[in-house]
Amino acid sequence: MFDILRFLEDKRDGRAHSPEELKTFVEKFYQRSIPDYQVSAWLMAVFHQGLSQSELRSFTEVLASSGHKVEFPSDIKIVDKHSTGGVGDKTTLVVVPLVAAAGVSVAKLSGRGLSFTGGTVDKLEAIPGMNVHLSLENFIEQIHHIGCAISGHSLELAPAEGLFYTLRDVTATVPSLPLIASSIVSKKLAGGASRFVFDVKCGKGAFMTDLEEARALAQMLVSLSKSLRRESMALITAMDQPLGRWVGNSMEVLEAIETLHGRGPADTETLCLHLAGAMLYLGGGAETFAEGLCQCKKVLKNGAALQKFKELIQAQGGEAAVCDTPELFLKRAPFEYVIAADRDGYLNSIDARQVGEGIKRLGGGRATKEDIIDLSIAIEICGKIGDFAKKGTSLLKIYYSEEGKLEQALPFFQQVVSISQKKPVPQKLIMEIVNA
Amino acid sequence: MFDILRFLEDKRDGRAHSPEELKTFVEKFYQRSIPDYQVSAWLMAVFHQGLSQSELRSFTEVLASSGHKVEFPSDIKIVDKHSTGGVGDKTTLVVVPLVAAAGVSVAKLSGRGLSFTGGTVDKLEAIPGMNVHLSLENFIEQIHHIGCAISGHSLELAPAEGLFYTLRDVTATVPSLPLIASSIVSKKLAGGASRFVFDVKCGKGAFMTDLEEARALAQMLVSLSKSLRRESMALITAMDQPLGRWVGNSMEVLEAIETLHGRGPADTETLCLHLAGAMLYLGGGAETFAEGLCQCKKVLKNGAALQKFKELIQAQGGEAAVCDTPELFLKRAPFEYVIAADRDGYLNSIDARQVGEGIKRLGGGRATKEDIIDLSIAIEICGKIGDFAKKGTSLLKIYYSEEGKLEQALPFFQQVVSISQKKPVPQKLIMEIVNA
Repeated sequence: MFDILRFLEDKRDGRAHSPEELKTFVEKFYQRSIPDYQVSAWLMAVFHQGLSQSELRSFTEVLASSGHKVEFPSDIKIVDKHSTGGVGDKTTLVVVPLVAAAGVSVAKLSGRGLSFTGGTVDKLEAIPGMNVHLSLENFIEQIHHIGCAISGHSLELAPAEGLFYTLRDVTATVPSLPLIASSIVSKKLAGGASRFVFDVKCGKGAFMTDLEEARALAQMLVSLSKSLRRESMALITAMDQPLGRWVGNSMEVLEAIETLHGRGPADTETLCLHLAGAMLYLGGGAETFAEGLCQCKKVLKNGAALQKFKELIQAQGGEAAVCDTPELFLKRAPFEYVIAADRDGYLNSIDARQVGEGIKRLGGGRATKEDIIDLSIAIEICGKIGDFAKKGTSLLKIYYSEEGKLEQALPFFQQVVSISQKKPVPQKLIMEIVNA
Repeated sequence: MFDILRFLEDKRDGRAHSPEELKTFVEKFYQRSIPDYQVSAWLMAVFHQGLSQSELRSFTEVLASSGHKVEFPSDIKIVDKHSTGGVGDKTTLVVVPLVAAAGVSVAKLSGRGLSFTGGTVDKLEAIPGMNVHLSLENFIEQIHHIGCAISGHSLELAPAEGLFYTLRDVTATVPSLPLIASSIVSKKLAGGASRFVFDVKCGKGAFMTDLEEARALAQMLVSLSKSLRRESMALITAMDQPLGRWVGNSMEVLEAIETLHGRGPADTETLCLHLAGAMLYLGGGAETFAEGLCQCKKVLKNGAALQKFKELIQAQGGEAAVCDTPELFLKRAPFEYVIAADRDGYLNSIDARQVGEGIKRLGGGRATKEDIIDLSIAIEICGKIGDFAKKGTSLLKIYYSEEGKLEQALPFFQQVVSISQKKPVPQKLIMEIVNA
């Protein structure tokens, strides 16, 4: 007999739960026969006592099994990528065609943006005609045909995890590493891929602001995946400033296309190539991670990746010509407000989090799941940390649609860029790589 | 503006709350505008992070202020006693007349028994005619008149504390020392006394099974009281075996009367004298605790305490003759079941907790607040730890009313007494005394 009080006492005092107990606990909560107030006490106990490796594995498996599981035919090996969420992160749009062009299938189930971070499904919708909600049948067929597909979740993956997340959000138990890791991996498991690359963002614009914490999460994600017999790698990457030159859905697609043309911002290209290289390696398309990187560079340079992206857009009903003349298809908001340097100096910091919060106020990001957003809202980041700016030169350009919203958003943008007299040492983009 | 999420994060991460924040938190929870699931996360965070001295004081004060506060006229100095709950604990019935006879007023607000522990209000009801629910007016008048009164709570004291307790009970957060201490002291504060003696029970038959934990609670109770400008002492007393010879409401009254006659069991008399001595000292009726003890011995020996108990019973409408011929007035259940020694040996342990659980099954204790109990159910403890018993002599006598209930209860009684060949070293009754 499952005794919820004893279960709570066990976690409170640091004793491990058995797999059966965790299964019963999750199932009962999902059926709403354990009340929220007991689950929230458990969440806070987990925050303080953690979960053992074995508990983490069981908990993740039970969450993953709480709804439908995507199952791919055994003849395709699926590699997936997960980012913990950042500002200006358009890598999925580049990485998926890169890896597919280099010969490994990628089935990408993506989400929408929430809070201060963006989501791939929103970005794709900026491409005219693009179908971002494929049926599972069409999704698999497309992967068979061209080696890649990107779609929103048509099924609710790991729905029990969603219930836990909702409660964590209101009980100050979101930043618990085992709860974060189980949340991420349970959805990946349910999504059907067998190999994962995790992009663990670290810095002021990410949920993990501290390298040690990011490293602990990266290691936990990789060891948890391994315990579930899934190969994986984690890259800890800098999110101290927004990635690339553009933040905002339409313009991020533009930047992704520019990157596939080989003329994207250096940081966007570097990060995409490393993530794609890791995926290629894990998918068996390269002997080593380093070789995976080289092969991805090659398909970027020879245009094969761009060609693959065109195929993907076409297959999903979109206007492939966006890849040739993106400015004709991707809308940018009509009005422009410039924030300029008030003195000479080096760009010392660019607060990605504030950019994300500001863009939300402009109508370009979601506060709640139901919000409809304006894809044309955009922020142009005119320089990167370490660049020199003369007084009067542009630091940020804000593209907006309504004066009223600009007023609400401006306080967030005013302090985004700080200028110093001493040239700062820029953070490395790829901070660490964690292997199994 | 009070931000519940930030409040939870603060406690989660070990940052102290301000008095204003605690006040708002308790008030909002009491008005039901903070949901249980957030409060239970806070309770678990408190279990792990504790409360600072200043937090503990503020929290206790806010709880005490959540309902009515009993206010006594300034001309009477009230001393109160609180026991953390044990098995066979009839000390209140002896201590109240002892202290009053020695010259210090005692206003005792008591509760009913719950779970495996007994309550004074139940015991008093075993005396025919006894009114155990005095109005505040009559309560005060009686104290003015004869120096003592014992009554059930007519008003709900510290009702917010009750809400917290209900939630602690179902979220495995009962055994948190600061939550226990604030629960006890908030009700004492609302009860209007200015000096408290705490009887912190320690052992298998108590909530605190471990001396270190009991000591930490005792120290917390005393320092918390001091911070609220209330003088107090705490006695840590053994509850490794039931106190005295009898467990069960009617028979505990009988034992209390025997004790007031000067012929009670040694342990019951010793504990009562020490508690009463401490109360007399705190109430200003003795120069030192030791002198308080001597004076209480005197009023026990010279019959003044017994006389005071008669006055108390009479004042509350009860049959005072119970003090002269208790066996005529106090009913004992009709049937007797004897558990005898199965071999020669020393009594090595007498599991008080199991006795309490067993008596509950016999109908002599409550599982829920609403249960009606049979006051005549009784267990006679025929020997104390360290006594020698020959094979076949009685260890326990169970007095019961229904065969069916005896059957349910017997498994609890079978293992109560263990016998060893080596004489055990008995636990000291008064384990430690904690002063401010």
